[in-house]
Amino acid sequence: MKYNYSDIPEVTVRRLSNYFHILKCLKENGVDFISSKQLAALAHTNAVSVRKDLSYFGEFGKKHIGYNVNFLMKEIMKILNISKTNKYIIVGYGNLGTAIAHFPGFKDENFLLKGIFDINKNKIGKEPIEGIKVMHIEEIDAFVKENKIKFAVLSTPMNVAQVTSERLSKAGIRGILNMTGRHIRVSSETLVFDINIVTGLEWLSYFVSKKGDKR
Amino acid sequence: MKYNYSDIPEVTVRRLSNYFHILKCLKENGVDFISSKQLAALAHTNAVSVRKDLSYFGEFGKKHIGYNVNFLMKEIMKILNISKTNKYIIVGYGNLGTAIAHFPGFKDENFLLKGIFDINKNKIGKEPIEGIKVMHIEEIDAFVKENKIKFAVLSTPMNVAQVTSERLSKAGIRGILNMTGRHIRVSSETLVFDINIVTGLEWLSYFVSKKGDKR
Repeated sequence: MKYNYSDIPEVTVRRLSNYFHILKCLKENGVDFISSKQLAALAHTNAVSVRKDLSYFGEFGKKHIGYNVNFLMKEIMKILNISKTNKYIIVGYGNLGTAIAHFPGFKDENFLLKGIFDINKNKIGKEPIEGIKVMHIEEIDAFVKENKIKFAVLSTPMNVAQVTSERLSKAGIRGILNMTGRHIRVSSETLVFDINIVTGLEWLSYFVSKKGDKR
Repeated sequence: MKYNYSDIPEVTVRRLSNYFHILKCLKENGVDFISSKQLAALAHTNAVSVRKDLSYFGEFGKKHIGYNVNFLMKEIMKILNISKTNKYIIVGYGNLGTAIAHFPGFKDENFLLKGIFDINKNKIGKEPIEGIKVMHIEEIDAFVKENKIKFAVLSTPMNVAQVTSERLSKAGIRGILNMTGRHIRVSSETLVFDINIVTGLEWLSYFVSKKGDKR
């Protein structure tokens, strides 16, 4: 089957990742098969969307049986390119960076933390996780090149988000997960995914108010 | 102008919030007007999407002049229901909860932290932020009712995410920002917005690999 990856909407990829996490949860609970309708309900979407999202990549479901949970998980892993290990670094080791470094969700998802960077002298040289040292940001270029790191989680203070992201892009980082809450612009060679906590609360604010809560 | 809020796609609301943060950044940099094309470029989308997203709510732009940054910001604030203060609590005060409590992005966005909840005896009774105490989860029902709290950020460990979210929903919380990385299901009275850090990396993994990075 031929398809052009650039035609696939960003939102489909986002949902694919969401399906993957739901499937993982189902597998842990011993579920072997799931219909597009059930998967849609768990993902807060509809069955048509689920089928359409998956149809970009192939035929995964069977009529009257649905999707094989284990098979679909493996296929999504291949699509998302997470069957092999992706190395990443954390840049900015405050509370947020610390939370991410210890986040249990990464463990079984083939994202491997390789280094932590900060500018605070009190943090540099420490080893908060076995084998993972906090290094000075000045060392980042050499480290990224030597270890062929493509991904960085940016968790610096807002006021240095832009300058740090430019530095990451120049060093060779190809994907930045921006958690600073500040909009950043980098060269088109580097992709940015924004995770903004405030955006989440704003979304909730909108839909809760529209539901007409009486309290 | 009449429109039905339930017809507005979730993704539009998400983008609206994104536009808002970009506009804020522009305002700070002294920009007064912006075209849909410029706004689209900053938001990683296209001008047609920008115009369509905003058209659900009214006519905000002027031909050849574009959008007035300040005016559009205020209108989006009204739409998102963030012109007035929204009170929220943090449930789970580990590294992630700590990061959120101190996140500077909330300050000027009318989201007001009212309380923090945990089960760890060493944390309870402390006041990490002036006027905001860490309370035991047992106190949550009374606190939510008394203070008319609608929103909660869920940052507990994964294994208690489901049981805690059910408790929040029963206590009267109408919107949960789920940062646990675990899929949760609550009664339809409560809305859930998932922020999953792993999803962000998976999205990057997909698009970086599709761009055909040679390293």
